[in-house]
Amino acid sequence: MNDPSTVALPDPLRLYRGGVLQHARIAYETWGQLSAARDNAILLFTGLSPSAHAASSERDASPGWWQRILGPGLAIDTHRYFVVCINSLGSCFGSTGPASIDPATGERYRLSFPELAVEDIAAGGMAAMRALGIERLDAVIGASLGGMCVIAFAAQFPHAARRLISISGSLAASPFSLALRSLQREAIMRDPDWQGGQYPPDHPPRSGMRIARKLGTITYRSAAEWRVRFGRERLAGNALSMSPFAPRFAVEGYLESQAERFVRVFDANCYLYLSSAMDRFDLAEHGGTSEAALRECTAEHVLVIGVESDLLFPIDEQAAIAAAFRANGASVQFAPLPSLEGHDAFLVDIPRFDAQIRTFLG
Amino acid sequence: MNDPSTVALPDPLRLYRGGVLQHARIAYETWGQLSAARDNAILLFTGLSPSAHAASSERDASPGWWQRILGPGLAIDTHRYFVVCINSLGSCFGSTGPASIDPATGERYRLSFPELAVEDIAAGGMAAMRALGIERLDAVIGASLGGMCVIAFAAQFPHAARRLISISGSLAASPFSLALRSLQREAIMRDPDWQGGQYPPDHPPRSGMRIARKLGTITYRSAAEWRVRFGRERLAGNALSMSPFAPRFAVEGYLESQAERFVRVFDANCYLYLSSAMDRFDLAEHGGTSEAALRECTAEHVLVIGVESDLLFPIDEQAAIAAAFRANGASVQFAPLPSLEGHDAFLVDIPRFDAQIRTFLG
Repeated sequence: MNDPSTVALPDPLRLYRGGVLQHARIAYETWGQLSAARDNAILLFTGLSPSAHAASSERDASPGWWQRILGPGLAIDTHRYFVVCINSLGSCFGSTGPASIDPATGERYRLSFPELAVEDIAAGGMAAMRALGIERLDAVIGASLGGMCVIAFAAQFPHAARRLISISGSLAASPFSLALRSLQREAIMRDPDWQGGQYPPDHPPRSGMRIARKLGTITYRSAAEWRVRFGRERLAGNALSMSPFAPRFAVEGYLESQAERFVRVFDANCYLYLSSAMDRFDLAEHGGTSEAALRECTAEHVLVIGVESDLLFPIDEQAAIAAAFRANGASVQFAPLPSLEGHDAFLVDIPRFDAQIRTFLG
Repeated sequence: MNDPSTVALPDPLRLYRGGVLQHARIAYETWGQLSAARDNAILLFTGLSPSAHAASSERDASPGWWQRILGPGLAIDTHRYFVVCINSLGSCFGSTGPASIDPATGERYRLSFPELAVEDIAAGGMAAMRALGIERLDAVIGASLGGMCVIAFAAQFPHAARRLISISGSLAASPFSLALRSLQREAIMRDPDWQGGQYPPDHPPRSGMRIARKLGTITYRSAAEWRVRFGRERLAGNALSMSPFAPRFAVEGYLESQAERFVRVFDANCYLYLSSAMDRFDLAEHGGTSEAALRECTAEHVLVIGVESDLLFPIDEQAAIAAAFRANGASVQFAPLPSLEGHDAFLVDIPRFDAQIRTFLG
């Protein structure tokens, strides 16, 4: 993977909760061509952990996290649209975050990074588009944390996008999600290798990150999917382990491979900041109620997709998002999908998501 | 709390998966009087973590874990029944378990404790009843792990009980539950204080146990209950903490109090053994299928209670338990309850459980 392209954000960058960053940058990837009228741009926000590499590109041919949705002739058709995916502010794939060098000290920010909000990630996306010469967007799309970013975007830049797609997002996280994310952070912070955030880059809090990721993986899917996919299948070979508590079941092997991959690529402090930002996000801060927060929003068409088996961003929260936009007169389609794959369905149940997005972008 | 009463198990005790224990004992509590005909005894199995102290007694006036269900005039009426609750074999409240002294070495068993199965807990309950002079039971009752014990009891002692009540149990755990319990065990075993199971009793793996318990607490309840109970209420005072990731929300304070209490009283190795036993339990081992495993069971009446919001022992598993008993001609009532409180509803939604149990025991 080459170093990603980056753009400079306004300098200094004032953050939503009062902090300031110097020389902050956003990493991004693009697909397709910007039209002469500059009216075919789509901004794509990611979930908590992916990079801006949503699909193969000339720069990086490896498959991206939305490879089957984004591309020529696909649901987000790069023959028609100029698509920009950004790496979230606060993340670790090229955008400025806790793992970046603070220009004021020459050291990594770590916990001296200012408090991050979903609003900052949304504003970072808009600033990146402006840096690319684009003031008005045809569509803004995001899933999970990205869905929250779409909602924060609509409140902060109410006239900047013609269409919005929020997938498995939230107006404000439920206590069940708060509890799970709090526990993921605790697992990291209780790992002695976290060292109060001062771990060396080559010796991260691996145990804590593994537990956090495994818990994520469990709650991103659904019990029903796993019954079909794993059942009580045994893990080959591991019966030989001497530990009385060695993994025995195939589902444990799956969690293991997910966790190993994550620990290799993601920074623990970045995880803590992004996770906390999701907890604190509450659209109602922008005007007293969620409906009031969206009062100025002039997006013409809004598509809200939710998944009935989603534990973390449950379907009634998706209905509430649709209702909040609808209260302000937008044309809103709400698509509750019966996918088995829970919160992660947008990455897996491609036919259903393809159909919804393709029809909406029309 | 006084030392609990205990009875000796058959010596040596051969375990279901091949191990052997010397001088094993089971702790128990009783309520009510055994009739002259010895035909009014009820055996009660517990969930993973409680002691045999299900309700106040002469010995111990403090409230027990099923205080509002078990007592004079309550659903399990101690004016009518002689009720025996046992502490599970492998636990740490008086019964022999990994935290007990191995008489062969004078040291704690720790990981030298043989592999424990749900069948051993069930058999320990029957052996305790025999030691008390009771061969035939009016009813066997249990919830959660206790529900699994009721099922294992029915397969191993098919003629020993006239009535059975299985609450939120399982014929064999689903991969979703396997994954969650595997992660709880990993959190404990990755805590450096676990020391491969050799931690000093006064210096247990507190961090790992806290994480395991918090994860349990989250999955024992439901998102819907917590939305009503906690919402996004803030935690008073904690805003003063210097950590950028300090708990902010009331739900985090609740998890904290649950975890603190648990870490003080429960032994980590016992937890690992009991948790693993739940994973490996599969009724179909007793005859090829669950139905075949229950072929000899002569219980006349079976009540299966499940909770629609239970994530860990979901309602379709409860229906499967009812079907397995029904296939063998027992009179089976299946009660799927709409309680909001998830797996823990039997501890909380007392009116609904009271009504079911009271009517059934009639």
